[in-house]
Amino acid sequence: MRGVVMHAPGDVRVEEIDGPKITAPTDAIIRLSATCVCGSDLWPYRGVDAVDQPTPMGHEYVGIVEEVGSEVRNVKPGQFVVGSFVSSDGTCEICRAGYPSSCVHRVFMNEVGTQAERALIPNADGTLVATPGMPDADLIPSLLAASDVLGTGWFGAVAAQAGPGKRVAVVGDGAVGLLAVLAAKQLGAEQIIAMSRHESRQKLAREFGATDIVTERGDEGVAKVKELTGGLGAHSVVEAVGTQESMQQAIRSTRPGGNVGFVGVNHDVALSGEELFFAQVNLLGGPAPVRQYLPELIDLIWERKINPGKVFDLTLPLEQAAEGYRAMDERRAIKTLLTP
Amino acid sequence: MRGVVMHAPGDVRVEEIDGPKITAPTDAIIRLSATCVCGSDLWPYRGVDAVDQPTPMGHEYVGIVEEVGSEVRNVKPGQFVVGSFVSSDGTCEICRAGYPSSCVHRVFMNEVGTQAERALIPNADGTLVATPGMPDADLIPSLLAASDVLGTGWFGAVAAQAGPGKRVAVVGDGAVGLLAVLAAKQLGAEQIIAMSRHESRQKLAREFGATDIVTERGDEGVAKVKELTGGLGAHSVVEAVGTQESMQQAIRSTRPGGNVGFVGVNHDVALSGEELFFAQVNLLGGPAPVRQYLPELIDLIWERKINPGKVFDLTLPLEQAAEGYRAMDERRAIKTLLTP
Repeated sequence: MRGVVMHAPGDVRVEEIDGPKITAPTDAIIRLSATCVCGSDLWPYRGVDAVDQPTPMGHEYVGIVEEVGSEVRNVKPGQFVVGSFVSSDGTCEICRAGYPSSCVHRVFMNEVGTQAERALIPNADGTLVATPGMPDADLIPSLLAASDVLGTGWFGAVAAQAGPGKRVAVVGDGAVGLLAVLAAKQLGAEQIIAMSRHESRQKLAREFGATDIVTERGDEGVAKVKELTGGLGAHSVVEAVGTQESMQQAIRSTRPGGNVGFVGVNHDVALSGEELFFAQVNLLGGPAPVRQYLPELIDLIWERKINPGKVFDLTLPLEQAAEGYRAMDERRAIKTLLTP
Repeated sequence: MRGVVMHAPGDVRVEEIDGPKITAPTDAIIRLSATCVCGSDLWPYRGVDAVDQPTPMGHEYVGIVEEVGSEVRNVKPGQFVVGSFVSSDGTCEICRAGYPSSCVHRVFMNEVGTQAERALIPNADGTLVATPGMPDADLIPSLLAASDVLGTGWFGAVAAQAGPGKRVAVVGDGAVGLLAVLAAKQLGAEQIIAMSRHESRQKLAREFGATDIVTERGDEGVAKVKELTGGLGAHSVVEAVGTQESMQQAIRSTRPGGNVGFVGVNHDVALSGEELFFAQVNLLGGPAPVRQYLPELIDLIWERKINPGKVFDLTLPLEQAAEGYRAMDERRAIKTLLTP
């Protein structure tokens, strides 16, 4: 089958790769209806993460079940399914506590690779959620977003305890940051400050529910957020970048007793214990437990109450994946959808 | 009046200092019934924090109100009072959200100095809580503990979300760590693992409610906690030391989705963002919002349901403060009570 393979930073190719085979009775195989390029795929693309060998890429997916292992009960061939970017058994103590992305049997789907025609899904019963029926074509981008960026933005907002009466700030205007704005809005936040200096992203942020836009960064950005929140800082801040600067900006924008939900994959970040101590903010982050939100997110999408698929501003055939990466790297596109 | 002054690391003297004077209408002056030496006083004593000039010491206190400013309504001369080590107005948005230790008008009481015969209490109405009457002498150590170490251990346990069904671990066997054990017990925790290698402290930890003792530190300590918690780590971990090693030990001892309450004043700690991201633990710490717990803690003490005063294993007259510091520095004493 055809699949995306990264050979080195900047070198993404679509080539013939081995198709998936069921090896565990809990596996399933899906035929991808759509997949996409993630902001986190840009870390190796930009050489920040090493690329030691040709690496199959992708961890976001929606598609139709083709085959299931003998123990799979919850999904069956022919169903349209959405799954998390982390496969989880759904039964361990950590899953049951609401953290399937830290499941004791988790498999990060980027170890499998979903930018391809088909993909193996380990722990199928704990990972996949079938939609009520075959989705209309226009719903597919939104369902695909649920697989990672929507679920991740949602977790960021939940971890930041966005909700009624809360003043929320979002650091980062990539797909995850924008969808954290959407999540904060759905969760009932009173004020939603999007930090962005890109006009098209500001526009989408407003469409998703942002009440204020802050273009400043660093200490100036922090000062601006404080100015907009009665001098105290936001109650809830979502960090959706993962750098030293963005983490500090998030922490410093939060009032004492407030909450930071950090969902940007951290790279070379060292947080000062002293600063965290005196900031007195709640900090929770990590790979989003997307699976636990999927039923609710699929419902919202199915009933057309949210349209997170708008973050895909470029759609290309899988064969043109290289251009999809390039467009995101150069920030010409927020997020690229690939059709196998 | 007589008061403790630190002139340099290791150089603590009791000398004649100026008595307190009311300057703001919200001030009160109390005559100390008891005060004490805090683990955090050892940072400058050991030269870790600089001592730039002769510095009045102490931030823990109980005593009798002598005089109040014209706007003070909640306490009056003659009452026995307990207050937090951070003075707070009790009315600002941060106080009302439950974080008086981050009050917009806070004054850290160590800037005032309470190891003395009398002390000025700024923001008296928001800071002091009167006891139901004059306490019996044997209750005074426990009431004094409420002023900081009990309230701080309590916050650590609350921040770590210790409670029914929870497996709790406590890193640090100083007064705060030991009282975090007591707090976890009161909050209904199922299992309480105290990390200590000192026999007398292990004994007190067991008395306060510890179900298990772990003597190992670092990675071995983490492995031991995991072994005692079904391989997953504790749900709730209280950090009560404040070093790089103890913070890492706390984070690594916590299961994904669990909570770390860190109350050791951090010194030269740098937390890896990557590690925090993938650990997926909730982190909350800082100066404990002791004031919000005082009414409850005073009740528990008054009704003799808890006896946190047991952490004071050395009582000296104020004049012998230097020996009190020495004993704690050499770990001959857990905590020194000083009687003015």
